[in-house]
Amino acid sequence: MKYTLLAMLGIYTFMNAGAQSVQLQKIKNHNHQNSSALLKEFVDFISIPNLASDSTSIRRNAFHIMSLMNKRGIGNVQLLNATAKGVPPSVYGEVITPGAKTTLIFYAHYDGQPVNAAQWAEGLEPFTPKLYTSAIDKGGSPVSLPETNAYDPEWRLYARSASDDKAGVFAILQAYSALVKSGIKPTCNIKFFFEGEEEAGSQHLGEILEKHNQLLQSDLWIMCDGPVHQSGKKQIAFGVRGDAGLELTVYASTRPLHSGHYGNWAPNPALLLAKLLASMKDENGRVTVQGFYDDVIPLTISESEALKNVPSVDEQMKKELRLNSVEMPGKSLSEAINLPSLNINGFQSGNVGKLASNQIPTYATAVIDLRLVLGNDWQRQQNKVIDHIKSQGYFVIDHDPTDNERIEHDKKLIKVIAGKFGYNAQRTSMDIPIVNKVIMAVQTTTPDKIVLQPTMGGSLPLYLFEKHLKAKTISVPIANHDNNQHAENENIRLKNLFEGIETMAAIMMIK
Amino acid sequence: MKYTLLAMLGIYTFMNAGAQSVQLQKIKNHNHQNSSALLKEFVDFISIPNLASDSTSIRRNAFHIMSLMNKRGIGNVQLLNATAKGVPPSVYGEVITPGAKTTLIFYAHYDGQPVNAAQWAEGLEPFTPKLYTSAIDKGGSPVSLPETNAYDPEWRLYARSASDDKAGVFAILQAYSALVKSGIKPTCNIKFFFEGEEEAGSQHLGEILEKHNQLLQSDLWIMCDGPVHQSGKKQIAFGVRGDAGLELTVYASTRPLHSGHYGNWAPNPALLLAKLLASMKDENGRVTVQGFYDDVIPLTISESEALKNVPSVDEQMKKELRLNSVEMPGKSLSEAINLPSLNINGFQSGNVGKLASNQIPTYATAVIDLRLVLGNDWQRQQNKVIDHIKSQGYFVIDHDPTDNERIEHDKKLIKVIAGKFGYNAQRTSMDIPIVNKVIMAVQTTTPDKIVLQPTMGGSLPLYLFEKHLKAKTISVPIANHDNNQHAENENIRLKNLFEGIETMAAIMMIK
Repeated sequence: MKYTLLAMLGIYTFMNAGAQSVQLQKIKNHNHQNSSALLKEFVDFISIPNLASDSTSIRRNAFHIMSLMNKRGIGNVQLLNATAKGVPPSVYGEVITPGAKTTLIFYAHYDGQPVNAAQWAEGLEPFTPKLYTSAIDKGGSPVSLPETNAYDPEWRLYARSASDDKAGVFAILQAYSALVKSGIKPTCNIKFFFEGEEEAGSQHLGEILEKHNQLLQSDLWIMCDGPVHQSGKKQIAFGVRGDAGLELTVYASTRPLHSGHYGNWAPNPALLLAKLLASMKDENGRVTVQGFYDDVIPLTISESEALKNVPSVDEQMKKELRLNSVEMPGKSLSEAINLPSLNINGFQSGNVGKLASNQIPTYATAVIDLRLVLGNDWQRQQNKVIDHIKSQGYFVIDHDPTDNERIEHDKKLIKVIAGKFGYNAQRTSMDIPIVNKVIMAVQTTTPDKIVLQPTMGGSLPLYLFEKHLKAKTISVPIANHDNNQHAENENIRLKNLFEGIETMAAIMMIK
Repeated sequence: MKYTLLAMLGIYTFMNAGAQSVQLQKIKNHNHQNSSALLKEFVDFISIPNLASDSTSIRRNAFHIMSLMNKRGIGNVQLLNATAKGVPPSVYGEVITPGAKTTLIFYAHYDGQPVNAAQWAEGLEPFTPKLYTSAIDKGGSPVSLPETNAYDPEWRLYARSASDDKAGVFAILQAYSALVKSGIKPTCNIKFFFEGEEEAGSQHLGEILEKHNQLLQSDLWIMCDGPVHQSGKKQIAFGVRGDAGLELTVYASTRPLHSGHYGNWAPNPALLLAKLLASMKDENGRVTVQGFYDDVIPLTISESEALKNVPSVDEQMKKELRLNSVEMPGKSLSEAINLPSLNINGFQSGNVGKLASNQIPTYATAVIDLRLVLGNDWQRQQNKVIDHIKSQGYFVIDHDPTDNERIEHDKKLIKVIAGKFGYNAQRTSMDIPIVNKVIMAVQTTTPDKIVLQPTMGGSLPLYLFEKHLKAKTISVPIANHDNNQHAENENIRLKNLFEGIETMAAIMMIK
């Protein structure tokens, strides 16, 4: 199969560049001629708070999506609920095309990452979307939502989930809407599936998929989540990394101590945790946890070949992020995301800044994130880290310590909360006919050769689709790469939103 | 001089045990017979917020102290101001005793450490003092302020500065009041000096001392700050450690990054800072910063001898704090506080707990506290740590980095804010006649042999008194050792407050 797919892509692009452009142009025109209403509708959607644990707001989002579906004439609209109460429902809808032999199902998620509003830039609030002339850190200034159908594609809309992943939900719904309004008939059956607890670990997704196994049958899932390639080129990813979390809390004295009277006699939990975390990686950024890189299934020939063709963005990204070095010297970003990883998401002990005081804190906490590649088992990966912690002289418990637990061992004491809802990585073969059709369809939307990524750095619980539905999945992301997803100042560049709608529409037109 | 002081102390105790007891008993009776009013007056005092940077509240405290002095008939009451505006003033007052040949000046500070109210126990607020039947973490429950003159000495009053150091200010003022009310004439001139920016580094203390050099002359300064010995015995400390702070901020990417898309490619500032801090101490808790233990002036024979006689509290404290080990195995608490130290006060990067998200933070900050012993220079000690940071591959700046600074070196980037108002350690000889008199006076208040500490673990800017006034200083602390000073849930045990008043009164009666 060596070179076949990439060669095909070149030929197809050449042959079909003109063929779909009339239909695509109609879609593009429709969106641009209705951009004011379109943006307003999107802003209303991202104004609804969407933390998965906030069950009231989550249901407001779900109902809102149902009404957007109804408005577009999508059928069989319903909530797919888990058995337990308060679980964010998935939202389903479908369009059955008479005579169609292919069924595509489009996925995006409508819940978002937690927000720490205090960390957002002045003038921004996570759920009060605001439009800026460009990225704020590049000098963008506020601009009103346009009353006419004129906008600058470089404008950015700031809000939690503006890109991750309400942009996905909206692009899919708007793509279908544009298709219909432009008088284009879909060529396949289209199903819609919007998850509500992806950022909380998709704890009930498996149950929902299993329960609605028949309803959710398809030839291919199109996962619309994550950013396009940093080069600005559109990309398709054939896999995702798995994900698992660990929260570590090191305990010391039961009460905070004066750093003068007890400093360097009483153990300092921040130092203990710093030493523990420092022990997890060597000077070359390699994780030193025993067996951490074992179990990894190597890339296939097609995948290796595709990886070689991924444009290098290392120098561009270093410049953009003002980095003079990388964590693993000599490893490219592409290589790095094809390895399991260990990242510190947060570290907190005592106080800094104005609240700092001369004390020895009573505990120190860190949250670490493990990303997994094909072959890793998420719980085995967590256990490797826990074994490493034990090897560093720690007694590991899974709860706040009792007075006795603090002293009954001669070991250091740590609470390890192993996230219960991790999941494994997943990869779909690049060499399946329906997958090839989607690649070709996306290629029709852009003159640039699209990037084919064997795996994305980010995670989605795609293995669940394989497990419960025997389904195939590929990811077609649309957001700008510098969207600050998962952090403060999340945003979507309007060019990406509009092009994302076109990408989704092109996929809906495959034959 | 070997053994002389300790031997003297034994003889003196035996000879004078009866002599002062009548006067002391009067003082004790007076306080107990007026305990309700006394406690109410103290509660009013500690209800006033007292962060040194809060200039409005600080002046309220100063005026409040002036009124307490006036009420007690203390003369020449005045604020001693620095030249710059908004600096917390020191409060001065004096009682001149006709014919007295000795002048004692009593020091305490009325400002307090910053508070993070969210960290205080439920039901407690830093500036709403509350009385409990015992320590909250030992099962104490709330109790009203007594309307009668009955109280339990084990009761604890919770509030910021309840012990550090408004207890000192109040004990000194109340001691004089009790003396007068009991019809006892002071035997020496008594001066009062209450500082208002000790917890903010005593930045203007030198200037104030210099400006009022004549007014502040004395034979000895009695510094009332800090806790009694952990054994519960009263103690006198002849020196304090110096103190200097450093705030370290490691920078990585200019914007927060998704841990999946960039984890283990982009540097993680929390890991970098963890590794840096970990590099500062070896597995035996010894600071690895080059030359860190140089410059230390050894203890004199008297001091070494006194140190040997300090009761060991290591096992008691380990039990009390639920520690199964100490940072420097084999080193006792007494030994540890006679060494320079390095402590992490706080560490913060990204978020933990409910706000945790899968991101690579943009920076990580730690505050470290250096304690110094005689011979260390505070700025030299800071520079040793900065040199260590440089040796770990960092480029050090003293401000938020510009875009260019982030990349113009091939080094890791750190901002180091070296606290500008550190100070050196100080020690007063134990063998001076006036010092001996104070030792004897304190000894009359207790049947237990008092503890003589060559140095306290904590810090006070005592070298300034030596420098600007050529003055001698000793510390006579009164607070319970488990007072949570500098942290949440600060408290004073009533027994310590009342005994502290007696101690101060006994010193005012030396001949």
